[in-house]
Amino acid sequence: MTENATLAEENGSRRGRGDRGGAAARRAARSGAGPSGQLTYIRRNVPFYEVLDDEALALIEANADTVLEEVGIEFRDDAEALAMWKEAGADVRGERVHFPKGLPRALLKTAPPVFTQHARNPERSVQIGGGSTIFAPVYGPPFVRDLDGKRRYATIEDFHNFVKLAYLAPSIHHSGGTVCEPVDVPVNKRHLDMLLAHMTLSDKPFMGSVTAPERAEDTVAMAKILFGNEFVENNTVTINLINANSPMVFDDTMLGAAKVYARANQACIVTPFILAGAMSPVTVAGTLTQVLAEVLAGAAFTQLVRPGAPVVFGTFASSISMQSGAPTFGTPEPSLVSYGAAQLARRLGLPFRTGGSLCASKIPDAQAAYESANTLNSTLLAGANFVLHAAGWLEGGLSACYEKFVMDADQLGMAQKFAAGVDLSENGQALDAIREVGPGQHYLGCAHTQANFQTAFHRSDIADNNSFEQWEAEGQKSAAQRANEIARHWLESYEAPPIDPGIAEGLHDFVARKKASMPDAFT
Amino acid sequence: MTENATLAEENGSRRGRGDRGGAAARRAARSGAGPSGQLTYIRRNVPFYEVLDDEALALIEANADTVLEEVGIEFRDDAEALAMWKEAGADVRGERVHFPKGLPRALLKTAPPVFTQHARNPERSVQIGGGSTIFAPVYGPPFVRDLDGKRRYATIEDFHNFVKLAYLAPSIHHSGGTVCEPVDVPVNKRHLDMLLAHMTLSDKPFMGSVTAPERAEDTVAMAKILFGNEFVENNTVTINLINANSPMVFDDTMLGAAKVYARANQACIVTPFILAGAMSPVTVAGTLTQVLAEVLAGAAFTQLVRPGAPVVFGTFASSISMQSGAPTFGTPEPSLVSYGAAQLARRLGLPFRTGGSLCASKIPDAQAAYESANTLNSTLLAGANFVLHAAGWLEGGLSACYEKFVMDADQLGMAQKFAAGVDLSENGQALDAIREVGPGQHYLGCAHTQANFQTAFHRSDIADNNSFEQWEAEGQKSAAQRANEIARHWLESYEAPPIDPGIAEGLHDFVARKKASMPDAFT
Repeated sequence: MTENATLAEENGSRRGRGDRGGAAARRAARSGAGPSGQLTYIRRNVPFYEVLDDEALALIEANADTVLEEVGIEFRDDAEALAMWKEAGADVRGERVHFPKGLPRALLKTAPPVFTQHARNPERSVQIGGGSTIFAPVYGPPFVRDLDGKRRYATIEDFHNFVKLAYLAPSIHHSGGTVCEPVDVPVNKRHLDMLLAHMTLSDKPFMGSVTAPERAEDTVAMAKILFGNEFVENNTVTINLINANSPMVFDDTMLGAAKVYARANQACIVTPFILAGAMSPVTVAGTLTQVLAEVLAGAAFTQLVRPGAPVVFGTFASSISMQSGAPTFGTPEPSLVSYGAAQLARRLGLPFRTGGSLCASKIPDAQAAYESANTLNSTLLAGANFVLHAAGWLEGGLSACYEKFVMDADQLGMAQKFAAGVDLSENGQALDAIREVGPGQHYLGCAHTQANFQTAFHRSDIADNNSFEQWEAEGQKSAAQRANEIARHWLESYEAPPIDPGIAEGLHDFVARKKASMPDAFT
Repeated sequence: MTENATLAEENGSRRGRGDRGGAAARRAARSGAGPSGQLTYIRRNVPFYEVLDDEALALIEANADTVLEEVGIEFRDDAEALAMWKEAGADVRGERVHFPKGLPRALLKTAPPVFTQHARNPERSVQIGGGSTIFAPVYGPPFVRDLDGKRRYATIEDFHNFVKLAYLAPSIHHSGGTVCEPVDVPVNKRHLDMLLAHMTLSDKPFMGSVTAPERAEDTVAMAKILFGNEFVENNTVTINLINANSPMVFDDTMLGAAKVYARANQACIVTPFILAGAMSPVTVAGTLTQVLAEVLAGAAFTQLVRPGAPVVFGTFASSISMQSGAPTFGTPEPSLVSYGAAQLARRLGLPFRTGGSLCASKIPDAQAAYESANTLNSTLLAGANFVLHAAGWLEGGLSACYEKFVMDADQLGMAQKFAAGVDLSENGQALDAIREVGPGQHYLGCAHTQANFQTAFHRSDIADNNSFEQWEAEGQKSAAQRANEIARHWLESYEAPPIDPGIAEGLHDFVARKKASMPDAFT
């Protein structure tokens, strides 16, 4: 690699020619030490990757219609929901709803294909649908793998830390929801502390509570304190995870939360949570059929509640190990499901959620990275509009990992650069550079390279591209060790975004009042 | 994760019902302990991912034509090559060849879009071009990272080991070439030992020597011993890496080897070896322009030598770090280059080589895996027909790593499963399974799952999908540690494929005679 040594020297000397200030500024911007380097959400300039042709899609759609009509979907323990379906023309037998062909699709005509989720900082508002992609952190882990490498139950301090990291990470566009379960806070009060953290420690958009209808009501109430009553009535300021209890069941909790949010014109992500082989058939086409049937029923229900309420076609696709029954990630079948589901969502005219940086590994090692990269690549190329679990997911979602959060965020920056596509401007074509340099020379010092020095090529915060000798001299660190240092540095450098003191006081008062009104519950 | 516990139990009990023999057979097949589980090369059933539209492609083609005409390509120190170009109608000034618009394309009309590279075991022969993909091991590293975690110069024993691993890995279709540099063998004799290893320790197809024309002649001579004179004269039995010395130079060594191979109807992969920013412009479109110009010139040259000789459109696309000049891998820009170059190759009607499992990391950690997975995903979706460096590449190609070889091979198996696409048969649609199971139940015991138990879902050899507690009890191993055990196991279990003793003797005699005819040279 004699070229490399040469390049390093030449490049070093070039930088030496009076560019030190610029390099320092760039390093500061890249360190994410403040939100100055924040990226807006992705507006894709690359095509979708589509694995199914029209005939295959029509077949799966017809099969989903058959499932909806013949097998039906259960809306459990919710008399109101069942009455609404009966009223809408469905065939309701007990808790089982059978759908006349075409009914869910007809209801979904009122759902917007694209909507804006507003953030309290308008620069952080995101468009969900169309060619946009939004990255949000991991959701739901009861454990963390902390910065000392210890796996333990998550606390509210961890929750705050992950909100801070998501706020600081330039490539994460959304503060997410249950970034980890703050197990040290009573179950019935957690949502208040979580919402307070998202609303005050970050200015990015966030997710609401779905674990009980009254907690969804609290979410809307707090959003009204943050954004003002009128704004919330007219705009979408929360997005909320309404999971199907696959196969083919929506339970009372989820339906209750969906009703609260849809009535308030807040967004629902209707997501069949599927480990294929357990909650769906062992085949990709069979899984897609069931996913589509469940989404059609659940998403159409939001339109029964309030026509026009924003709703997202969600999938969480994984497979089980046929040996052990354990969930697996980053394998080929869930990628195929993601690609296919994205196509079905586009045909339905709904925004789409899938994927993330999913893995089964217990540590941020090569397994974690292979699996996460496989998932993220298919997520991005499929055209997911909302990407939950984009950073920090470890161990099948049981742990939120600080190191992996930072490593994943680095990958998200690359994904965003990729999605910008190929620059075909005259500068992008670089014909003059080729003319200037000519055979056998190099491009390092040429005018075109100098003009594009700052923006050319994605720069990773995590990757070590140095020589073996330099890497060795610097302590032979793994990517996870470098990520550990960055996570510590980010947390030390964190400063909360400004907030109107009256609003902050209102939020704190609401939380204090609510907490005082209930006894602690830990189950 | 209460579902998982249940699933594991049920799955365990199902297997208990008299399927132990089958499970053991599958484990044996998956361990790669013999070539019984070998996969044939990929015949893709998924579309290509294309980042450029027709207008963009035409623009890049026009720019490449301009570069070929105005700037030209140097064919250095090869009077014969320059005379051939003059004879063909090019404008030759010194060593610089300027190409009238359309000349290279016209010459390439004789190049086959698809060809077969024969292996001595006909079941291992591969089709190169069209919808096929062939995975071959890393090529060129002077170092290894060995099974004791030590980085040291590679030896002929390492070379043998990597040939054995590639032979055993079911997802690697090709034995490759310089899987590592056997630094303990004199430079002028290495090719003999390397060829002997590929020909006797494996029965998969292999690559020839390109480091000097006489070594290319030795390759063809040894191939004739292995396959018979007549077979080699009528068939392609070697594939050979002819790199451009980018920008826009082909040197004497490469041209000499290309002439030997093309004359013998053996395949050349004409590959601009590019670290963008150093050997090409810092932009994707500029790099694609130069790549296309270089390939057009080099590949057309093979057709001047022998019309109809098989030739592959190669790219090796990476970028440099603009801070240090060091090569980077797994970043967005090289992926875009791979996607674009694949489209240009298809428009030209040539088979295509790019990518692999590339990374800059010094160890098989998360960086290595993120970067390798990013590269492999784009390689596969781009539609690369020949994938060099598909397994074992570490540290920018300076090291061949045993652990990473096994981890990458596991990923290649997943890529192959992905490329099979979505099964839309009645069994794939699984409508009866959905009918049978119904809302709120699970699919583990259903007839459809049982019928598809053996083939459903890719099974990773490396991934640990067990619970945290089980993983902890089993020693908290990283993916690299598990890969280390598998690599050791594979090497212990290796048995050479049968070979005609007369042929083996002929090969050994040839090598002995050739070695005796030259003094050792170490530079």
